[in-house]
Amino acid sequence: MTRLSIDAERLLGRLRELGQIGRDADGRLVRLAGSDADKAGRDAFVAWLRTAGLEVAIDRIGNIFGIWKNGANADAAPVLLGSHIDTVIDAGIYDGCYGVLSGLEVIETLKEAGYDPARPIAVAAFTNEEGVRYAPDMMGSLVHAGGLSVDEALATIGTDGTVLGAELERIGYAGPQESGFLKPHAYIELHVEQGPVLEREGVPVGAVENLQGISWQRITIDGEANHAGTTPMSMRRDAGHAAACVVTFLRGRARASNTPTVATVGAMSFEPNAINVIPSRAVFTVDLRDPDEQRLREEEAALAACLEQLAAAEQVAISVERLARFEPVIFDASIVAMVEDAAQKRGLTSKRMTSGAGHDAQMIARIAPSAMIFVPSIGGISHNPREYTPEHDLVAGANILLDVVARLTAR
Amino acid sequence: MTRLSIDAERLLGRLRELGQIGRDADGRLVRLAGSDADKAGRDAFVAWLRTAGLEVAIDRIGNIFGIWKNGANADAAPVLLGSHIDTVIDAGIYDGCYGVLSGLEVIETLKEAGYDPARPIAVAAFTNEEGVRYAPDMMGSLVHAGGLSVDEALATIGTDGTVLGAELERIGYAGPQESGFLKPHAYIELHVEQGPVLEREGVPVGAVENLQGISWQRITIDGEANHAGTTPMSMRRDAGHAAACVVTFLRGRARASNTPTVATVGAMSFEPNAINVIPSRAVFTVDLRDPDEQRLREEEAALAACLEQLAAAEQVAISVERLARFEPVIFDASIVAMVEDAAQKRGLTSKRMTSGAGHDAQMIARIAPSAMIFVPSIGGISHNPREYTPEHDLVAGANILLDVVARLTAR
Repeated sequence: MTRLSIDAERLLGRLRELGQIGRDADGRLVRLAGSDADKAGRDAFVAWLRTAGLEVAIDRIGNIFGIWKNGANADAAPVLLGSHIDTVIDAGIYDGCYGVLSGLEVIETLKEAGYDPARPIAVAAFTNEEGVRYAPDMMGSLVHAGGLSVDEALATIGTDGTVLGAELERIGYAGPQESGFLKPHAYIELHVEQGPVLEREGVPVGAVENLQGISWQRITIDGEANHAGTTPMSMRRDAGHAAACVVTFLRGRARASNTPTVATVGAMSFEPNAINVIPSRAVFTVDLRDPDEQRLREEEAALAACLEQLAAAEQVAISVERLARFEPVIFDASIVAMVEDAAQKRGLTSKRMTSGAGHDAQMIARIAPSAMIFVPSIGGISHNPREYTPEHDLVAGANILLDVVARLTAR
Repeated sequence: MTRLSIDAERLLGRLRELGQIGRDADGRLVRLAGSDADKAGRDAFVAWLRTAGLEVAIDRIGNIFGIWKNGANADAAPVLLGSHIDTVIDAGIYDGCYGVLSGLEVIETLKEAGYDPARPIAVAAFTNEEGVRYAPDMMGSLVHAGGLSVDEALATIGTDGTVLGAELERIGYAGPQESGFLKPHAYIELHVEQGPVLEREGVPVGAVENLQGISWQRITIDGEANHAGTTPMSMRRDAGHAAACVVTFLRGRARASNTPTVATVGAMSFEPNAINVIPSRAVFTVDLRDPDEQRLREEEAALAACLEQLAAAEQVAISVERLARFEPVIFDASIVAMVEDAAQKRGLTSKRMTSGAGHDAQMIARIAPSAMIFVPSIGGISHNPREYTPEHDLVAGANILLDVVARLTAR
C-alpha cells in the first residue's frame, strides 16, 4: 500500500481539546479516575470513537474500547492500541492521552484510506492508570490482564473515602463487558518518554524494549536523641547521619556502575527534627529500578549489606518495609524491531530503550505480545503542566504507530 | 570554719516537690515561661525564699532574686548563684531547678550555721531560660546582663500568640526592680551536665571552664524534581543527595579532628517528598559548636567551601540563612580553679570541661566573673522525663557550690 500518514491537525486538535477538559478553579488539569472531570474526558473520547464509526465497548472496571471490526475477520483477535486518559493533579496534556488519541487517529486514518486489515484494530483507554485517587496504579489494565479481580478493584476505597465502583456507576462508566473480554493479538502503546534521554540525544523515536523492574522500600533507622551541644561525636547514635550514608551509598553505587540502574531517595524525615537534637529516627524511601531482574536483586542485596554494616558501625537499629516490587517486563522483540524498522523507513533515528516509568503496557504484556513507542519529553518533565513534546515529534510518533499497526494487520 | 555540708534531705525534697508542680493532664512536666504552671513553680520558690528569711526582689522581666544581706556589708556586690525554673515540654526535674534550689540550699546552710559572709549572697531564678514559648532563650539573664532591653523582651510574642509582658503581669511576676539592679561580684551556676561525659568517665564534678560558641544555619538546596524511574543518574540534580553529602561531610570532619568540635544536622525535609520523585529541594539545619572561636570560624568556612563545591558538582543552588551565632564564653579562671580545689578537698575527682549547652551563666559572664559546676547526667539524657542524676551526685555538687561560695565570701 501507499505510504499513509495520520491527520496531524485532527490528532493535535483533539489532544488540545482533551487537555482543556477537567481544569479546576485554578486552571490546573485534574482528571482523577472516576471523577466528574474523568467523566467529561471519557464522554469526549467516546464521542470521537462514535464519530469515527467504531464500536464502543465499556467493561466493568470502566475501560473504554473503540473497536474497528472490518467484515469477515471480526472474530479474529484485534491489534490493540491504547493508554489512559486519567491524569495526576496539575497534569500535562500528553501523558496517556497522546497514546489513546493516536490509537484512535491511526484507526481513523486506516479506515478512511479504505485499508482492509487482516484483523480488527481497537483502541483502549484504561481506567485509573495514575493511581492518584485509587491504588494501585495501572488498575484498569491490570484487571484486564487478569492480575486483579474486577470485584476487588471496584471495591477500592479512594483517598477521598469514595468507592471506585460507586464512582464509576455515578459517572456512567461501569460498563457491561466482562473484564478481559477482548484478548489482543498484540498491544502497542505510544507514550511520551517522561524522561530526558531522547531529547538530550536528539533522537525522535524510542523503541522501548523493556520496562524497569521496581523495588520500593521504606527504611526506618532508630538511634538516640541527644543534645547537639553536649554529646561528643564519638558518643552519638545519629539516625540522620546513618540515613545520609545510605543516600550517598546508593548514589555512589548507581553512578559508578555502567548499568541503567537508578536509585532514588525521594522521601526523608527526621525525628524529633529539631536543630539542637541529634535525630533519634530517620525514615526514608528507596526506589531502585533496573531492567534486569538479576541486577535488581544485586542492588537490593547491596543495600541490605550496607544497612547491616551501618547498623553495627553506627549502633542504630534498622528496619525495612517492602512497599512494592515488580519484576522487569521484556517487550516483544518482533514488535520492537518493527518500531525500529518503521522509524528507519521514515528517515527517523530511533533508539532502543528502557521504560523507567510504569505503563499499562506492562500489564497487557502478561496476555499479549506488547511493546511501546516513546517520543521525546522536553526537559524530561512529566506529571507537571510544563510537560511538553513538540508537535512534529507527536506526529512522527503517531505515524510510526500507524506503520507498525499496518504491518501487524497486513494480509 | 568547720567543714559545712548542705541539708541533703531538704534539697532533694524541694527538688522533688518542684518537679511535681506544673504537671499536665498526661502527667508531663511543662512549666513554660509566663504560664500558670510557671506561676505555681515561682510561688513555691518565693515561699521557700521567705521561709529562709531572704529578701525577695523581682525585676521587670520577672527574674526572682532571694538576697541574704548580712549586716554591715549589705551594700557590697553579692555573690550570685542561680539558674532557671522554667522548663521545656515534657521536661525532667533537674535542668535549671537543681541550680536554683542548690543556691538557696547553700545560703540557708551558711545562714543557719551562723556564717558571716564578707558580702551578700543571692540566688536567682532567671525568666525564660528555655525559650520554648518566647524567643530568645536565656532571656531573663540576657536582659539582666544588658544584652536585650527589658521593653523589647516584654513585648516578645509567644508561639501561642501571647505577649510575655502581659503574661508576667497576669501571673503576678512583672516586678518593680529595674533590670540589672543587682550587679554581682561573681556568679556560679550549678547544673546537670546534659551530656554523657562525666558519667562515662566516672567523674562526679565538672569544673566548667568555657562554653561552646554556637553557629546555627539553615541551608536550602534547590535541584530539580524529576521522575525517579526515567531520569538517568548522570542527568540528576538531586537536592536530597546534595544534602546527604553535607551531613556526611560534617560528621566525617568532626570525627576526624581531635578537637571538641561538634556538628549536628538535626532537622531535614525534602520536597516534594515523594517516593518516586527526585527531591527538588532539601532544607536542613546545621548546628556547629566549638569552645574556640577561631576553630568555630574554620568549621563555618569549611562548611561554606563544601557547599560551594557541591553547588558546582551537583548543579544545585544553595542558600544559607544564619539563625544564631554566639561566640564561645570563657569562664573565670580563678573560680574554675576554686571548683577543682573544692572537689579535691572533698575527695572527689573533677574534670575541666566545656559546656555544650547554653546557660544563663554565659549571659551573666558579660557583667561578672562567672563559672559553672556540672554533675553527671545519666545517659547524657536531658529535656526528657528520663533526665536523671543520682542523689549522691546532686548532694556532692551542692556541697562543692557551698565550698566555693564560702571561699568567695570569706572575710
